[in-house]
Amino acid sequence: MQTLEIHATRLWESLQTMAQIGSTPRGGVTRLALSDEDWQARDLFCQWLRDAGLEVKVDDLGNIFGWRPGLNPSLPPVLLGSHLDTVPHGGKFDGALGTLAALEVVRSLNDAGIQTRRSVGVVAFTAEEGSRFEPSILGPSAISGRFPVEYVYARRDVHSSATFGDELQRIGYKGEAGNRPPVPAAFLELHIEQGPLLDQERLQIGVVEAIVGVQWIELCLEGEANHAGTTPMAGRRDALVGAARIIHAVRDMARTLGGTALATIGRLKLEPDTINVIPGRVTIGVDIRHADAAWLDHYTGMIKRLGEWVAQEEKLEVSAEHVQLLPVTRFPSSLVEIVEAAVRERTLSYKRMMSGAGHDSQWMARFCPTAMIFVPSRLGRSHCEEEETSPEEVANGAGVLATAALRLASE
Amino acid sequence: MQTLEIHATRLWESLQTMAQIGSTPRGGVTRLALSDEDWQARDLFCQWLRDAGLEVKVDDLGNIFGWRPGLNPSLPPVLLGSHLDTVPHGGKFDGALGTLAALEVVRSLNDAGIQTRRSVGVVAFTAEEGSRFEPSILGPSAISGRFPVEYVYARRDVHSSATFGDELQRIGYKGEAGNRPPVPAAFLELHIEQGPLLDQERLQIGVVEAIVGVQWIELCLEGEANHAGTTPMAGRRDALVGAARIIHAVRDMARTLGGTALATIGRLKLEPDTINVIPGRVTIGVDIRHADAAWLDHYTGMIKRLGEWVAQEEKLEVSAEHVQLLPVTRFPSSLVEIVEAAVRERTLSYKRMMSGAGHDSQWMARFCPTAMIFVPSRLGRSHCEEEETSPEEVANGAGVLATAALRLASE
Repeated sequence: MQTLEIHATRLWESLQTMAQIGSTPRGGVTRLALSDEDWQARDLFCQWLRDAGLEVKVDDLGNIFGWRPGLNPSLPPVLLGSHLDTVPHGGKFDGALGTLAALEVVRSLNDAGIQTRRSVGVVAFTAEEGSRFEPSILGPSAISGRFPVEYVYARRDVHSSATFGDELQRIGYKGEAGNRPPVPAAFLELHIEQGPLLDQERLQIGVVEAIVGVQWIELCLEGEANHAGTTPMAGRRDALVGAARIIHAVRDMARTLGGTALATIGRLKLEPDTINVIPGRVTIGVDIRHADAAWLDHYTGMIKRLGEWVAQEEKLEVSAEHVQLLPVTRFPSSLVEIVEAAVRERTLSYKRMMSGAGHDSQWMARFCPTAMIFVPSRLGRSHCEEEETSPEEVANGAGVLATAALRLASE
Repeated sequence: MQTLEIHATRLWESLQTMAQIGSTPRGGVTRLALSDEDWQARDLFCQWLRDAGLEVKVDDLGNIFGWRPGLNPSLPPVLLGSHLDTVPHGGKFDGALGTLAALEVVRSLNDAGIQTRRSVGVVAFTAEEGSRFEPSILGPSAISGRFPVEYVYARRDVHSSATFGDELQRIGYKGEAGNRPPVPAAFLELHIEQGPLLDQERLQIGVVEAIVGVQWIELCLEGEANHAGTTPMAGRRDALVGAARIIHAVRDMARTLGGTALATIGRLKLEPDTINVIPGRVTIGVDIRHADAAWLDHYTGMIKRLGEWVAQEEKLEVSAEHVQLLPVTRFPSSLVEIVEAAVRERTLSYKRMMSGAGHDSQWMARFCPTAMIFVPSRLGRSHCEEEETSPEEVANGAGVLATAALRLASE
């Protein structure tokens, strides 16, 4: 393999410069998709792409591409990148790391005077976070065939009436459908883990094999609202007691199943929600994740069955509604092995792992061979101002991205 | 014992006439304290008192008294009554039954030409329900020494800025402190059970020995909000799982304790309440009731200990705050026996029982010897439009009230 050294300090400084745009007093970043801050970040990023000699193209969803032509421009290119938008009071690394590391790879290719066989593209996707426009990961919609462009344009700001389309136009980043990329030979995304595993196990790199599938279900339990003082314990149909039994059992079930099984009840609605009235209705939102598609379905089925079981014992009615399904995303083993080889070449410690969170790669994987590289998140903190990854960890990740990209671009 | 026959049809018709004021399309009543409907109900009630030859007096909290002088007016009188206000979309019987049955006792004394030794008073207390002004049972505040009058005047409508004092003035029922009653020999209150026991056991009368004590505590569990997809099950500090374990255990504990132990978690606040975020903080409101004061304290202590236990196991922080304490109210056995004797004289089926709900009697019992009589609530439904008690059940209750009142007024 050809070696490619990246310029760690330059990358770190670019990350810090980008983090100034939308910076918060406590060291975080608020840069919502298609906001003025996103606009400013895009302008800076485009300038950096041009400074690196790249041809900048913006597609109809505002995704920004910078192209470095290869010796054989008709071959499928290699695409690298992530996103620049953040959640409110987010961190400096989520998204920006993968985008600026991709730029750093190209800068390093330039420095080293390397001509690759395939073209190399750098991409900043639009609106990965779902904080302003729902659902999340809208950038790759047209490419992946997930949503028609018109559907994406019609998404509304969750806090105002502004649409995605209006805001894209307003900031001057509504480009051309003709600027969408050709199908790449591979897409690679470097990202912070957003979980605690690498940090806990003191590993430098995560070689991501898959993104877990997610099912969201809403279980609604109906009992009978009644007076807390005059209704004997024996005659009660307490919807919250039913919900409590389910919440506890769902957690214990996830522990017993082990592997990549995760289940969380993060949302709960209680009616009438009065201290001296037995709850008549409770609705809980269950987030179920697994890296194995069959297990994900199986586990979801078990939770629904658990709901029926508890409802029967507690004399409640139960209904289950599927709110969202994101299927398991598996990355091709050939591409995962190329990433793994790059890690080994750089003699970094690593593990193969799953991503528990969604990423642009999740939808890019429906379009072209895709893989991801993780670097540690201190204490697993993410989507918060405390998000932290060290300069060394950033450099390790960018180095692996560079090595793998060069290998792919040379094939 | 002298007998006193009440006029069952007249009482039933008075109840139906009163239920027209604030009547709802589905057969219920909305007559909030000091509202225009309450005003209208008070005017009608005062007219009925005067029609029965009673001297009407209104005290400084708007409690309405109608007095029928006894042969020896200097003796402590016998007072009978309840309240006329309702919850929103409440029923025809809660409060109105006890008030109009008291009036019926006086009407029947008049019909029978009976001169009692003691004076007999009929009372309609102000603002028993806490729906408009909190806390509930404000009418007896000055008499019982629970709250100063100025405190009660300053209570605000939960949905507007109107105060109790302003509204009392507006409807013309701000009377004189001098119209507060002398300390009665006894206060008797007839009320619907608001629970299912008499209806289930097909008993005609409940002879109430006590009103359960109530403790409200808020347990706050603090864990760590985190990403549902990237946080392994093992590392979680899920405040909702802790709360769920407590909710389930509190219910099972109440079942095991048996007796008059009741516990309800009717209020729950979840933060951040987002489907894909592990709950970082949960606050639950626990309503604990028992007819035995020592057991009430003991049970509350057990629930707090349970909270600490679960918190430790789930790696959470826990705090407990006492929100309200209503001590156990025991009625004097001498008075309970007089009620029981009246039931037996009328050869009605009955049981001695507790009241699980609060009543005007709860605070009157701090002022004078007090007892209560219950009649069945169909299916235990109360504080709702479906509240139902049959004409026969109403007549049974009023008959017991009349017999006991006559006995007490003759002593």
